[in-house]
Parts: sequence; C-alpha cells; structure tokens
Amino acid sequence: MNRSTLIEQIKEKKSFLCVGLDTDIRKIPQHLLDLDDPIFEFNKQIIDATKDYCVAYKPNIAFYEAHGPKGWESLKKTIDYIPSTHFTIADAKRGDIGNTSGLYARAFFEEMNFDSITVAPYMGADSVTPFLEFEGKWVILLGLTSNPGAEDFQQLELVNGNKVYQEVISGSSKWGTKDNLMYVVGATRAEALADIREIIPDSFLLIPGVGAQGGSLEDVIKYGMNDDIGLLVNSTRGIIYADMSPSFAESAANEAKKIQQQMAAFL
Amino acid sequence: MNRSTLIEQIKEKKSFLCVGLDTDIRKIPQHLLDLDDPIFEFNKQIIDATKDYCVAYKPNIAFYEAHGPKGWESLKKTIDYIPSTHFTIADAKRGDIGNTSGLYARAFFEEMNFDSITVAPYMGADSVTPFLEFEGKWVILLGLTSNPGAEDFQQLELVNGNKVYQEVISGSSKWGTKDNLMYVVGATRAEALADIREIIPDSFLLIPGVGAQGGSLEDVIKYGMNDDIGLLVNSTRGIIYADMSPSFAESAANEAKKIQQQMAAFL
Repeated sequence: MNRSTLIEQIKEKKSFLCVGLDTDIRKIPQHLLDLDDPIFEFNKQIIDATKDYCVAYKPNIAFYEAHGPKGWESLKKTIDYIPSTHFTIADAKRGDIGNTSGLYARAFFEEMNFDSITVAPYMGADSVTPFLEFEGKWVILLGLTSNPGAEDFQQLELVNGNKVYQEVISGSSKWGTKDNLMYVVGATRAEALADIREIIPDSFLLIPGVGAQGGSLEDVIKYGMNDDIGLLVNSTRGIIYADMSPSFAESAANEAKKIQQQMAAFL
Repeated sequence: MNRSTLIEQIKEKKSFLCVGLDTDIRKIPQHLLDLDDPIFEFNKQIIDATKDYCVAYKPNIAFYEAHGPKGWESLKKTIDYIPSTHFTIADAKRGDIGNTSGLYARAFFEEMNFDSITVAPYMGADSVTPFLEFEGKWVILLGLTSNPGAEDFQQLELVNGNKVYQEVISGSSKWGTKDNLMYVVGATRAEALADIREIIPDSFLLIPGVGAQGGSLEDVIKYGMNDDIGLLVNSTRGIIYADMSPSFAESAANEAKKIQQQMAAFL
C-alpha cells in the first residue's frame, strides 16, 4: 500500500488505529482451543470485529514463530485474511548483513505479502536498504522504543550533541523517503515526539505504548501529528484481550471503536 | 552446552571453528534439487563432512524463514541432526520487548533446542534478559559487526569517551555472565579486539568475517584469544560453497580441515 492510499484510508475511516495481533494461545478464549487453528480463528474474529475502526494490523511475529511451522501457517492465513484496504505490518524487528536482510525481505514482502516490516537499526545502512528495494513496501525502523530498555543505549549522548536515537533517525532518514520509510516511536516518550518531528517532519510514525503501556493518545497527537496525519497508533492488549469470554470479538470491537472515536475528534 | 564442555570440545578437536549453515537453494548443487528436502540434504552432507573439524554450527535463520513453513521444517531437521557434541547457534538477531523476547527464546531454545541465539542490543536490557533465563542456554549479543553499516551507529562517539559498541558491550556485560553471554565481533575489526578484551576479558566471542569477508585468522587469535581460548570463528561461504559439484561435501571437508589445521597450530 502506498502513502497516498494510506492517508485516504485514514481520512475515510477517521482513524489511524493499528490493531496488534499478538495472539497468545494462553490468553485466547477457551472455546476456541478445540478448533483446528485457534490462533487463526481468534484473529479472524478480531479482524471481522475491528476492521471498520482501524486502518492497519500488526502481528508480532514472535507469537507465531513460537509455534514453529504451524505458527507460520496461522500467520499466513491471517495475512491473507486481512482486507486489502488495511495496511499490514510484520512486527519482526529483523536486520542482518545485506544479502541476509534481502532474504528476510522476500520472506515477509513476497511469501507473506506484508506491506511493511519493523527493522532494527544497529547494523546500519546495508542491513536496512535491502528492505527498501521492494516497490510499494515499507521499512518501519526502530527509533525510540517504548520499553524500559530504551534508556540503556538509545538515550546515550553523543559528542555531536545528539542522542543515539536522534542520530539513528537522522542518519537513516537519508536511506529512504517518506514513501517507504517510517519509524517506531514509543508513546511513552511523547515528549520526544516534538524533537523527532523536527528531524523527520513528513515521515509516518508507528506509535506503540498507548493504553496498556501508559502512553497518552492526546500527547501523541499534540506532538506527533503532521499535515498528512503521519501517525499509526497501535493498541494490542486493550483491544484483543478486552474480554476472555465467547463475546471477546464484540468487546474488541467496542474498545477499537472507543479509540477510533477519540481519534475522529482530532481529524 | 555449558562453557566447560565447549572449552573441552575445542581442546579435544584443536579447533574453534564454527561452520555457518546459510543454505541458499540457489547455490546448492543441482543434483540435490530433485530430493524432497534439498536444504536439509545439503546440510546433512555438510555436517557429516565437517563435524570432525569444527565445534559449532550456525544456521542463519533468514535462509530458512525465506521458505516459510517448509523452511522451518528443514531447520528443525538440521538442528536435530547436528551431533550433541557440537554447539549450535541460531543466527536470528532477534530482540523485542520483554514478554516477546521470551517467546523468541522459547521458539529457539525449547521448540528447536538451540544452545544459543544471536540477539540485537538496540532495545536494551529487558529485550535481552529474557533469553538469559534459560539454564544452559546462551545469548550472543551483537557487539561490533563485520558489515560496512557497522560504521553508521556502532562506531559513533559518546560524551563519556566510549564508542556506542563499547558502551553496548560494557553495559550489557552486567546482564549475564561468561557462562551465558557471548558477543559477536567481526573479524574485519580485529584492531578493535584488543579494546574489547579489556572490557570483557573472559567472554567468548563469535567472530564472523574470516575468509570471504576479508578478516585474518592470525589477527583474531593475536588480539582476541584468552586463556580459555574464548573464540568461535565462523566461516560459511568458503566452506559450504567451496564447490558446486556432486563432490561438494568432500571439498567442504577439505576447507574446514585447512582452517582447523591453522587453528591447531595456535592451540
């Protein structure tokens, strides 16, 4: 999906919500466990229930990889089931030397037909650019993450006055364009969003950490929104695990709708 | 495999060679392509041919993931086939927020029974420590990589006088011990090995980049070896793709033996 289509979808739905599909077999409603593929069945019902309120879905690949080959089948069925009107994110945090990153790109962009993949920046340009060579596909590079460990290295100060994450964002911004490169910025760091917007005013940002992790949607909008909206705000646990009963999908729809309505007030 | 067993294996075989199993369907001998699982068949013959000359095997997970569920089957068969005398490394470069890293750890340590996994450091402590909680298993953290992109962020200078990679190594060294934490240090950076040895004198280092990527085994030994050897030197292309003919395994054995003999001279 290209940038203009993504922006159209956001404006049409009055939503920049991304639903995380971190589907954990230990957390899904009991009645699904007897089915042949409980993970896919759960995802299918969540997608049906939430698709009117969100513009993107983000499966975290670890939750599928943990089940070996069967997990990859569940993931493939899930990605095939997501409507083509929705932007898809493989939350994989991959990154390796050039030819190897190219293989990961083929796995997620061609085998799986994801629109985008999250990538870790530590290995530098040649670990990221192979993902940028796929027409119509996106890299979402880790900038400033929402977890406590973001303090350990991302926030270190460099002799040039930047913090490591600022240098990562500014250095990497030359490898792609606003049409194929986004950044992960945790909502728990909303105060950093204003600085980041000075470095990359036009780029889309994928914002995890709203809700369960404590980030504020209002702050994210205040400091992060640009003229093209420029935001995808992810929520996972608050939506997909809102309810463990057989009516889980209805509860997920209600939670997604609540967030969509908060977003609509700003669009 | 624990540290003392690994050291015993190295001393017994007079080798600290790790063979990379980056098995690319486009590069393996033609005659294997008609078999049911050419990738596993190739690996099996490479393992049979090289196991006397090496102490470790390192499949790069991208090469398997690129084939979807079938690739994971080939990987599982490969890891099950590697003799228990050999240390196994899932070269996966994973890393995510805590509970998610825990899932990756289960996938590679429990589903697959790897001894170790390579992990990217950008997200900090809580993305790495879940891997360290598995008894007898290892994290191999990216320190200073062998690719050109290592210049982009790893070599940046911090206000405290360290470079980013030095801070990554020194900061993370407190999260584990010499018994469960190793580091990736590219052989193309042998001059940095002496500095790294000052920070982590006792840790094992996994050294890629000898051979095809231009690193020198002699320099690695000079600057990186410690009293317990403390090195695993990886070679991939020079061994597994030494020869595309039906006698590829024999050629691989010869190349592995050559490196083993160079190593033996220093042990």
